[in-house]
Amino acid sequence: MDPLKVTFLGPAASFSHQAAVETFGNSSELIPCLSFADAIASVQNQRAEYAIVPFENSTNGSVVQTLDLLVDRSGAYNDVVVCGEYYLAVHHCLLARKGLFPASQRDYSSITKLYTHPQAWGQCEEFLRKHFKGVERQDVSSTSKAGENVLRTTTEANAAIASRFAGEHYGLDILEENIEDTANNTTRFLVLRNAKSERTTQNGFESVKASSTQGQPLTVSKTKKTLTSFMVRQDAPGTLADALLIFKDFGMNLTSICTRPSQIQAWNYVFLVESETDQDKEVVMDIVKNLREVTENCRHLGTWANQLVSE
Amino acid sequence: MDPLKVTFLGPAASFSHQAAVETFGNSSELIPCLSFADAIASVQNQRAEYAIVPFENSTNGSVVQTLDLLVDRSGAYNDVVVCGEYYLAVHHCLLARKGLFPASQRDYSSITKLYTHPQAWGQCEEFLRKHFKGVERQDVSSTSKAGENVLRTTTEANAAIASRFAGEHYGLDILEENIEDTANNTTRFLVLRNAKSERTTQNGFESVKASSTQGQPLTVSKTKKTLTSFMVRQDAPGTLADALLIFKDFGMNLTSICTRPSQIQAWNYVFLVESETDQDKEVVMDIVKNLREVTENCRHLGTWANQLVSE
Repeated sequence: MDPLKVTFLGPAASFSHQAAVETFGNSSELIPCLSFADAIASVQNQRAEYAIVPFENSTNGSVVQTLDLLVDRSGAYNDVVVCGEYYLAVHHCLLARKGLFPASQRDYSSITKLYTHPQAWGQCEEFLRKHFKGVERQDVSSTSKAGENVLRTTTEANAAIASRFAGEHYGLDILEENIEDTANNTTRFLVLRNAKSERTTQNGFESVKASSTQGQPLTVSKTKKTLTSFMVRQDAPGTLADALLIFKDFGMNLTSICTRPSQIQAWNYVFLVESETDQDKEVVMDIVKNLREVTENCRHLGTWANQLVSE
Repeated sequence: MDPLKVTFLGPAASFSHQAAVETFGNSSELIPCLSFADAIASVQNQRAEYAIVPFENSTNGSVVQTLDLLVDRSGAYNDVVVCGEYYLAVHHCLLARKGLFPASQRDYSSITKLYTHPQAWGQCEEFLRKHFKGVERQDVSSTSKAGENVLRTTTEANAAIASRFAGEHYGLDILEENIEDTANNTTRFLVLRNAKSERTTQNGFESVKASSTQGQPLTVSKTKKTLTSFMVRQDAPGTLADALLIFKDFGMNLTSICTRPSQIQAWNYVFLVESETDQDKEVVMDIVKNLREVTENCRHLGTWANQLVSE
């Protein structure tokens, strides 16, 4: 059988690429895409079995582009559903060309330029203030691109801030690890599949994951998460509260609610509601049935095993 | 008495500046700030009576930076409350230096470069495809900055995409108006004051606005909006639904719910809930009292007159 195809937002060595490798292993065919929309469209068109996309970051919150694709206002991704999640710890490293700074003499004073994504400067402020005060900073479109730049620019002493994964991908020296200010910065990824795909139904994501983790014990999660989206009628005050009450009535715990513009009418919203339960899947179907009676365009966007290990 | 001081996110001629002028008139002292945080801090420190900040856009949704300042995790803006709102229609114009393209011969083929904020390219795609296919595009940090660039660059034929307000501010010719693809693109601004300020209490925002609109009839709004924020205990499933039910019990209609990371613990959130009622203010105090019993860090962020005229 052909290897499973998995799409993610590129370039190679991006955080999404790392999440794809850690989730699906290297026996799958991992396909970088130019946009989140391309990654999801591949699942809708069944050119790929799975897509893996960032959903939220523990510090910065929702990834709005992903929310908007899941909201799917034009119905372009009707068959795409969430079938799993993966938590990726975000760590930054200081990377340089191999051999430029031997381990015995880690003096960074000759570094004249640093590359990274604009968000990463803010995440490593303390380290940068301590070691790189006044050094030129060049913004690039991704931390992975920063690693690539350092590999290719051989005319000057420069360094990148990027992941260990990117450093290994480009064969760079990892000068320093975990240089971020805040510990526990984590991005949650969602794994998407096509609800009509026979291959992903027969060979579910949980079993793919089991084989890619090569015999490591699986986290046995007791709870399931469910994502639903709906709009409420503007002429019916109280409907949003009524809709949310349905989850409570069926014993599901609301864990988060995201609001996006409907883009049909100004100040009309689509709500994305994530909820959790330790009951079986039948409950979700009952909830969706009841939601459809009070809301508009209600969609069950998937139910999957909770992977968050409580502290 | 000194004029009222009102802070907004600069530079001059920004959309925030326009909202400040249209809300407070020119008799107030309007003060551009380098960041939203600076604008809000001025109200907390009572160096300014009011701040006006964008809260959400009808197409793009919430302004996350403003949400995070209202969430106020470090308690830096304890006394800042919302006292009003203003809806600003976002229109884009094609602007050029005075006299460069006389109205009698509107041929834009000599324009070799366009300036605007990255978001505006996307909002004017149709117009750009029709008239400026292949013309060089230069990103700048704001549409206002684009207008300034066009004014200052006299060595070439270029144009900016920015507001009429920016065009008038820089004395540019308005070659085309309303070049945006989507009609009704509107940004809602919130007006903030310090709850402890005597001057803004005595001379409320509604009366300031009445005088700045120079005798124009005021929209008499029947409903009031309220913004509250709270966290829910992680060990108490169902609490979010319980909290939202309180609004319903007191006859308040939930209009939107925003979720932001608490930044205290990963996957723990602050909820910002906006609700609406045609009842008096006492109800809000009862709701807040009840919310405090089931939630943590509950804050009443203000109650103000709804300015949205229903279609």
